Amino acid sequence: MTASKTNPGYFFEDFRVGQVIRHATPRTLTEGDRALYTALYPTRFALPSSDAFAQACGLPRSPLEDLIGFHVAFGKTVPDISLNAVANLGYAECRFLKPLYPGDTISTETEIIGLRQNSNGKSGVVWVRSVASTADGERALEWVRWVMVRKADESAPAPEPVVPELKPAVPASELAIPAGLDFSAYDFAAAGERHRFGDYAVGERIDHVDGVTIEEAEHMMATRLWQNTAKVHFNARFREDGRRLIYGGHVISLARALSFNGLANAQTIVAINAGSHANPCFAGDTVYAWSEVLEKAETAAPGVGALRLRLAAVKDDPTPAPLRGEDGKYAKNVLLDLDVWALVPV
Amino acid sequence: MTASKTNPGYFFEDFRVGQVIRHATPRTLTEGDRALYTALYPTRFALPSSDAFAQACGLPRSPLEDLIGFHVAFGKTVPDISLNAVANLGYAECRFLKPLYPGDTISTETEIIGLRQNSNGKSGVVWVRSVASTADGERALEWVRWVMVRKADESAPAPEPVVPELKPAVPASELAIPAGLDFSAYDFAAAGERHRFGDYAVGERIDHVDGVTIEEAEHMMATRLWQNTAKVHFNARFREDGRRLIYGGHVISLARALSFNGLANAQTIVAINAGSHANPCFAGDTVYAWSEVLEKAETAAPGVGALRLRLAAVKDDPTPAPLRGEDGKYAKNVLLDLDVWALVPV
Amino acid sequence: MTASKTNPGYFFEDFRVGQVIRHATPRTLTEGDRALYTALYPTRFALPSSDAFAQACGLPRSPLEDLIGFHVAFGKTVPDISLNAVANLGYAECRFLKPLYPGDTISTETEIIGLRQNSNGKSGVVWVRSVASTADGERALEWVRWVMVRKADESAPAPEPVVPELKPAVPASELAIPAGLDFSAYDFAAAGERHRFGDYAVGERIDHVDGVTIEEAEHMMATRLWQNTAKVHFNARFREDGRRLIYGGHVISLARALSFNGLANAQTIVAINAGSHANPCFAGDTVYAWSEVLEKAETAAPGVGALRLRLAAVKDDPTPAPLRGEDGKYAKNVLLDLDVWALVPV
Repeated sequence: MTASKTNPGYFFEDFRVGQVIRHATPRTLTEGDRALYTALYPTRFALPSSDAFAQACGLPRSPLEDLIGFHVAFGKTVPDISLNAVANLGYAECRFLKPLYPGDTISTETEIIGLRQNSNGKSGVVWVRSVASTADGERALEWVRWVMVRKADESAPAPEPVVPELKPAVPASELAIPAGLDFSAYDFAAAGERHRFGDYAVGERIDHVDGVTIEEAEHMMATRLWQNTAKVHFNARFREDGRRLIYGGHVISLARALSFNGLANAQTIVAINAGSHANPCFAGDTVYAWSEVLEKAETAAPGVGALRLRLAAVKDDPTPAPLRGEDGKYAKNVLLDLDVWALVPV
Repeated sequence: MTASKTNPGYFFEDFRVGQVIRHATPRTLTEGDRALYTALYPTRFALPSSDAFAQACGLPRSPLEDLIGFHVAFGKTVPDISLNAVANLGYAECRFLKPLYPGDTISTETEIIGLRQNSNGKSGVVWVRSVASTADGERALEWVRWVMVRKADESAPAPEPVVPELKPAVPASELAIPAGLDFSAYDFAAAGERHRFGDYAVGERIDHVDGVTIEEAEHMMATRLWQNTAKVHFNARFREDGRRLIYGGHVISLARALSFNGLANAQTIVAINAGSHANPCFAGDTVYAWSEVLEKAETAAPGVGALRLRLAAVKDDPTPAPLRGEDGKYAKNVLLDLDVWALVPV
Repeated sequence: MTASKTNPGYFFEDFRVGQVIRHATPRTLTEGDRALYTALYPTRFALPSSDAFAQACGLPRSPLEDLIGFHVAFGKTVPDISLNAVANLGYAECRFLKPLYPGDTISTETEIIGLRQNSNGKSGVVWVRSVASTADGERALEWVRWVMVRKADESAPAPEPVVPELKPAVPASELAIPAGLDFSAYDFAAAGERHRFGDYAVGERIDHVDGVTIEEAEHMMATRLWQNTAKVHFNARFREDGRRLIYGGHVISLARALSFNGLANAQTIVAINAGSHANPCFAGDTVYAWSEVLEKAETAAPGVGALRLRLAAVKDDPTPAPLRGEDGKYAKNVLLDLDVWALVPV
């Protein structure tokens, strides 16, 4: 029995700054992805739900949920970048550059932009910038993430440390507004809420109220749909406690979908500024979400404003509490602390 | 933390007879909905399965299962009408007005047609008539239901009671037969059974034999697909016993799909005359179904007859038994008692 | 309560050699089937994932996974052929005759080609040849299987025994290569591995490494999607131990998808030469797979070679071990022993 033909993933010492990796497998998005997304997450945003609504907003038809593109593009990087990862440490500078529609085929490419070996000599941090493109070569989304990756050979020499400078948030002026998007005739009744740009105040918190208990079959179906192959999500015999770790993106999509209740008009995410998966999530956990308005910005598109939102997910106990304790560490029931830009009608 | 931007739903005292509510979120139906429906319910009816079969029956292509339209249209009413409901009491006068196809976008609107406060002063019964339309404004289906809804303010005055008069069943003459439907060259082998209109006798009972055990992931995926947000279906921490109540429509679709075995030629439902969710359904329950022929009617469409059927679902024990005891109450293992019209070849 | 209108399936004494059975229900394949397949099995083969990749390989667009066609076509035969089966004994001479695409409608027809009553007089072996065709009458796939079927009336006379002669494997010269398939400009980076025809040696074994733990909701959703109605897959009250037997085809698709890791370029299955479901599979089992190269053959298509592979699935313990003990019987953790032809770039 040999494993010589199987993919071992990259170890820390395999990465070089400037290296570019083209990832397998190109993937054509379909209406099937949309239906499964709706079945897996309680999403009700009108733009990715209705052709008629999307057309009234200046788009050719209903785009797919932004996070479908993110998960598919991200999943492609896993077998190369994070198969031997110890931890996914952060996200930055993630921009959604154009809406994706059924029929679009996306491929992902990653450049290594930073490396720093840990002092224990057993692992190191790898910073990568990934770009997903459609078959016509247009960029659809891009993001930076950094992960801690094991070394296969601990005696391999440490690389020269390179730590990229990253923006704390995507500036509002750099947000990519979908071509043609126009909220000037926005139908608030169809969208489900009356709150517009002017109704949200910086510092305001919105409790999204509803909770969802996660099942094993659900998170595995989602994670496979994104062709994300990380072993810990699928194999109950991988961890000693017999539990499967839920893909962090599953929690992002759950929290985003729950945010409909209070942010129904935040129709589309155009950037992820930062994000932490504060604690692991397992089947049986009940996920709740709340948002905080961090910043507001106008855009050049008619009737379209941008809200910068902190989207938090906690488990089991939705009682309002600080995400972090006095020691600066996340509380044990915090799952997600995400910082995004979303577009709303003014 | 504030919930002021989230949807509280309507309480009993918020409703007025004559009031019309436009519901969020318009939804474009897709082939993804069809595939998920097939994966969630053991349906094998030829008309919603095969373009070729449907075209041989005079339709442009294979329509979606009728209940997909019903669930999606119904789901839209939940956040407004039944978020604060104590019980879903009944259905009447539900007509399927035209087949729905992938690409159709449906929206739902509801008129309040009756109100009667309960003598305890804490809740009341609300009767509503809902209409689902496609983006071109054509009516696709309509139904009446009545629900018991809590009051938020028990001191709110009771409204003048208005109880609408409802038909005990949709008269056969008012059934909407899909335009072009023609069963005169019906392919019984492809449909899976040889029984035609003339083979069914009023009073006849058909045991549908097969049983299906329900999983949490399945009913939650279904209910989310219909964008139905009732908390009790998703949050294991909502009820003290940690169980999630299964959406009644999930049982309707299971029973309808099971009815293929014995009613394979009842290709399409055109009306729901009445329906009761006799007992709650939970994951782990094994659902069985049987039908009783209540009435037969000819239609103007070539080769098309109509059967009025009582479709019953029971759990765990399929032994034939009366649905109700001598006290008139449903037996504990009865889940569903539904009265429908379906079209069959003559 | 009567079951007279429900389908009892065929018992052993109902079959005659030469008899042809047209199965219900014709089924149009869709993008929804593709998405669900991806969600249910960890498949990442580029050809059924990407229109762009498929077009670069000479196909009009991305074909559906070959096993989607197989499962749907096979599922149709269950209510007639194997509803009363005691065991599914084997497969032979299965050829995939053309790629299937969303929009194709398939129907299945079966000819009885062999019968042999068992010496106990209670059951017998039935050999059948099934053919699945698209709506234009073209053959899409064909296969032989044999099953042990109960007799309803043990006193029914034994038929004259007829045992068909079957090929031990489909000869390479009889493989149906998809029209237009051309691997001469094959993109190995997009496909995910660099190994080509010349890199695989007869006798070589490839451990596919990853394991997947199965949930009840997953195998039931898959099996319903194929409209396969065998009771044992769905009803927890059917077996005394309360477990649902997983459809053997679910294990085939899991093993095939896992084989991506080491055989990513085995883009399409063109034949199943033989197959045994060595032991039953249940929810909670963790499935692993390995392959052995049995034979290699050139084809007439540009850049396209064929590998004959033994694809094995085992549960819970992936430690390499012989599939069979010294007594010739399969070890208890062996689920599947399949023999297939797949196409790879030369």
